[in-house]
Amino acid sequence: MKIRVGIVGYGNLGRGVECALRQTEDMELAAVFTRRAPESVSVKTEGVPVCTTEELPQWKGKLDVLILCGGSATDLPVQTPKYAADFSVVDSFDTHARIPEHFAAVDQAARNAGTVGVISVGWDPGMFSLNRLYASCILPCGKDYTFWGKGVSQGHSDAVRRVEGVKDARQYTIPVEEALEAVRSGKNPELTTRQKHVRECFVVAEPGADLARIEKEICEMPNYFAEYDTTVHFITEEEMKRDHSGIPHGGFVIRTGKTGWDQENSHVIEYSLKLDSNPEFTSSVLVAYARAAVRLQREGQSGCKTVFDIPPAYLSSESSEFLRKNML
Amino acid sequence: MKIRVGIVGYGNLGRGVECALRQTEDMELAAVFTRRAPESVSVKTEGVPVCTTEELPQWKGKLDVLILCGGSATDLPVQTPKYAADFSVVDSFDTHARIPEHFAAVDQAARNAGTVGVISVGWDPGMFSLNRLYASCILPCGKDYTFWGKGVSQGHSDAVRRVEGVKDARQYTIPVEEALEAVRSGKNPELTTRQKHVRECFVVAEPGADLARIEKEICEMPNYFAEYDTTVHFITEEEMKRDHSGIPHGGFVIRTGKTGWDQENSHVIEYSLKLDSNPEFTSSVLVAYARAAVRLQREGQSGCKTVFDIPPAYLSSESSEFLRKNML
Repeated sequence: MKIRVGIVGYGNLGRGVECALRQTEDMELAAVFTRRAPESVSVKTEGVPVCTTEELPQWKGKLDVLILCGGSATDLPVQTPKYAADFSVVDSFDTHARIPEHFAAVDQAARNAGTVGVISVGWDPGMFSLNRLYASCILPCGKDYTFWGKGVSQGHSDAVRRVEGVKDARQYTIPVEEALEAVRSGKNPELTTRQKHVRECFVVAEPGADLARIEKEICEMPNYFAEYDTTVHFITEEEMKRDHSGIPHGGFVIRTGKTGWDQENSHVIEYSLKLDSNPEFTSSVLVAYARAAVRLQREGQSGCKTVFDIPPAYLSSESSEFLRKNML
Repeated sequence: MKIRVGIVGYGNLGRGVECALRQTEDMELAAVFTRRAPESVSVKTEGVPVCTTEELPQWKGKLDVLILCGGSATDLPVQTPKYAADFSVVDSFDTHARIPEHFAAVDQAARNAGTVGVISVGWDPGMFSLNRLYASCILPCGKDYTFWGKGVSQGHSDAVRRVEGVKDARQYTIPVEEALEAVRSGKNPELTTRQKHVRECFVVAEPGADLARIEKEICEMPNYFAEYDTTVHFITEEEMKRDHSGIPHGGFVIRTGKTGWDQENSHVIEYSLKLDSNPEFTSSVLVAYARAAVRLQREGQSGCKTVFDIPPAYLSSESSEFLRKNML
């Protein structure tokens, strides 16, 4: 029998999970849960019901895992522990500073219920975290660097949209090539925020707006732009739609380190992602870890897990024998 | 108490393990075991005894894990199952085709003894395998490619040395930049052996040897060079010593894949290594997995494991809380 998956929240991430499930042979979408009126939501997979989140308790025992596709600010801190009381769950909680408390809340709920909750799944946190961990264990005498981009930052795009006179905006975070090269060279540079990334904004202004003032307000915005070199381009609505409707992202995790009796040898470990669609890639990682969550629960495990706790083989639909023979 | 480690075999790999242990705070080298006369071997770590492998049974209970640093052709197929009967063990067995039978032999010995045997640890098999697995689970609709180099291939260097008139030789495997770029572009190219890598040989010839014949014999050597574009450079002994005494290696694992309802979005996952010292990097991976082997055994697990079976957190000397707070 296929693994029965419920999606909670049907935005970009939820739709990405739906697409990713379609690429699996051992998992199937059983239902989509939304806080909106179900009749206003139409899903792509034929025959899949759309339900309200209030109906979730009735699905207990009919789903193997829930993939939670809400936001980290207000949705997941409530939803993940709540739903872990009835289901194994996977989320993409990405507020780094609040991971310890989120872990504790999910762990308690999941242990009490005998379910598995996998949190902070995606690419950062997620695959980038894994690469930081593996690399630091292999090269303890070393230093790691994470660069993000080139990609659209949703939070920064929103911040620009809040500036008076801005009708629409898109912000790209771009790693500085010279900084990447300095890191790869093994020089262990100390890099300031400004030296690591630049920010590029594409803005559609309201008719008659004061462009010089908008540009100044963006570039001087504390926390978001003041610490960076920022470029602002004013474009038309048509250009925005034509050139900036995608949600690309990516980045680099690089660790350089030394080995040898006198640390005479240098090594560079580099992991990078280049993603056409940030939410669809995150969704693909969520689906692989949903498979792992189900396996862990079936083995009798319970509690909160992160990507650090899960043996890589659990992500695969293939047997251990197959993996050893074909991928090792 | 620190994890007590025994090294079996004191060549390049064993010496690398000794150096890597020096960089840890939770592990210590307890003894080195050799098939040579112990008095002919001098180790770098002060106070560490050198023993014969015959003495190993007397060390039962006095070591937490053995790191086996012999060769895959004849040493490890015998040693790993044999020593797994008394100790948890880690090896770098890298004969891909024979992994299933090696796994079975080690698994039986380790299960009977209640020990843990981790096999095929290093970078390929090892870190490259992990990256193939993670990437294929995340992007099931995709294709992966492994490139090796630039680096010294020991087997190919040995093959060149066997050509008549060759006094010394070093062979570098080099990935073809155009092939790498074609893969990264997401074109899913079908690449022949010749299109993926070139081979470059540096040869010191015996005085008076027929250089044209040597070059021809190398380039036409079946299995080793005939399928590749090979370049041969004749150099002096001094140049060999000055420019080619290192053992660098590295390579790339790249997976490209599609997501979206109609597979409309492309993604590139790339992992690469650039290593000054192939054996020292492999040793560093072995030491991290030796730590994991000890933890698994202390938890009551037994049997043969590979990098696919081991939760990433087990490689670290830090607590799970620390890792979640600082690396996730």
